[in-house]
Amino acid sequence: MRLGIGDDCAILQPRTGLEICITTDFTLEDRHFRRAWHPPESVGHRCLARGLSDLAAMGAEPLAVFLSLAIPARLPAAWVNRFLNGFLALARRYRVPLAGGDTAQSPAIGKAHDGLILADIVALGQAPRGKAMLRSGAKPGDVLYVTGALGGAAAELAALQQRSRRFRNVTRLGPDHPHLFPEPRVTVGQRLRGRASAAIDISDGLSTDLTHLCELSGVAATLDERTLPIHARAAQRENAVELALHGGEDYELLFTARPEVRVPRRIAGVSVHRIGTIRQRRPRNRSALISLQTTEGKSLLITPGGWEHFR
Amino acid sequence: MRLGIGDDCAILQPRTGLEICITTDFTLEDRHFRRAWHPPESVGHRCLARGLSDLAAMGAEPLAVFLSLAIPARLPAAWVNRFLNGFLALARRYRVPLAGGDTAQSPAIGKAHDGLILADIVALGQAPRGKAMLRSGAKPGDVLYVTGALGGAAAELAALQQRSRRFRNVTRLGPDHPHLFPEPRVTVGQRLRGRASAAIDISDGLSTDLTHLCELSGVAATLDERTLPIHARAAQRENAVELALHGGEDYELLFTARPEVRVPRRIAGVSVHRIGTIRQRRPRNRSALISLQTTEGKSLLITPGGWEHFR
Repeated sequence: MRLGIGDDCAILQPRTGLEICITTDFTLEDRHFRRAWHPPESVGHRCLARGLSDLAAMGAEPLAVFLSLAIPARLPAAWVNRFLNGFLALARRYRVPLAGGDTAQSPAIGKAHDGLILADIVALGQAPRGKAMLRSGAKPGDVLYVTGALGGAAAELAALQQRSRRFRNVTRLGPDHPHLFPEPRVTVGQRLRGRASAAIDISDGLSTDLTHLCELSGVAATLDERTLPIHARAAQRENAVELALHGGEDYELLFTARPEVRVPRRIAGVSVHRIGTIRQRRPRNRSALISLQTTEGKSLLITPGGWEHFR
Repeated sequence: MRLGIGDDCAILQPRTGLEICITTDFTLEDRHFRRAWHPPESVGHRCLARGLSDLAAMGAEPLAVFLSLAIPARLPAAWVNRFLNGFLALARRYRVPLAGGDTAQSPAIGKAHDGLILADIVALGQAPRGKAMLRSGAKPGDVLYVTGALGGAAAELAALQQRSRRFRNVTRLGPDHPHLFPEPRVTVGQRLRGRASAAIDISDGLSTDLTHLCELSGVAATLDERTLPIHARAAQRENAVELALHGGEDYELLFTARPEVRVPRRIAGVSVHRIGTIRQRRPRNRSALISLQTTEGKSLLITPGGWEHFR
């Protein structure tokens, strides 16, 4: 970063032979979070985690982030400070500078409503030229893997919705809070470069994001229910497999590798699970792209049913 | 652009020896525009013009833009199409691809309000290494210049506010509509590289943006009222000089050059006006950074009084 906040633009000096990866993600109150459910540190953390997770899915090393933030006139300064604490704590962990952005006062709506908190994040990363992992590289015969565990974020969100109370004291990240403080797989992503044939992060749910990967690669996939890594928070619930298949915002990496490629069971301290295989795409029907081999030996078609944000 | 919309990130391949300039700008309904005043083409055009103008102020060549757009559930599709028409027409003029972004449904507020239109733009440009124009390079003795004419955007906005009617048929850009369709000085900015010692775009008004330039350069400035280029729309009004000094969103370039540097009176078809000089900064008082030599031969202190968006 040659020049950060303060001029018309920030300036980045890319090293020769590197590509720049860029992603943008909205974080809108009442769509991606609720002020009554999410502590400000969680909102700031998740805002940045969404962008870092996209970089991780490309295998890119984070270079810089930009934050555009609009806040209502009467929002307490403490909310913003706590939001920035959450945002910057995650930025420090991955040594990524906040290089600029935009601020605005959120528009009030009539006299009754002071306006909503609106954020947009831009994350830039770098990868060696031609080495970024795409969604489109999977081939029939490839093995399908996922990092970490699935369904935890959806299970925690369901608990938040049921209780609908403030979690003022939940300000620490970790596997105990996969919804409030998801961990973007930044280091794992970079280690997968050269191993994975295709990769995507699970933001919308396994069924939806695996469909994206299959569509862009022109393939289909078979999942093995017995091997799905289910998060402890989801495992306590009756609908554990549904949460793992369709629950959004786990921010784990879903990737494929040629069968001859050795994929360690642990990368940078994160478990890696073999959950299925890539096969040829026969029908043109999008709903027939993913099949699930159940523990009872049945074969089910899985349709995309992921996260659609709050309705 | 190696990879655009569709993957986790867009990928950019910078050429060796170039720097990447990055800027982000919000465009929020009821803050930066009103649905009743601004035709959708104007909103799309202005959304992108803000980012391109920041690139112009660095002397950068536009490379790619990203658009994050949240729209209310019941917004007519025609509004979005017309918005994109305005956005993409300007993008085509400067051959800059729309490389990605994010979309969301804008959160509804209670049952009465369907939500606001929210946009955020990211613009990336390139400039030869070390050649981007900064706000911080002005020195005492430098000459102060501005492109085009001032106050036109504020005059047109005032007219829109007074009439408060829909301008459905105003869909063409040009100097006649400096508020609805401002022209970012993209080509002029690139031609100023190597000539200008410092540059900024006039988004918040001459008085405010000249103050930014002076603060970052550690200098002060004297303006000559007789030489201020006043837009024809502003000239019709009693407060023409106030509009030229404080009116926002003209998106002209304000720049300085050493006295020995030859600056043409026209660059890429745009007029360039010598409007003052840079002098040493004596007092620490921010309000004493800019003085105006009036046509009556008086010397006035000018305080920043620019655009603060709609209240």
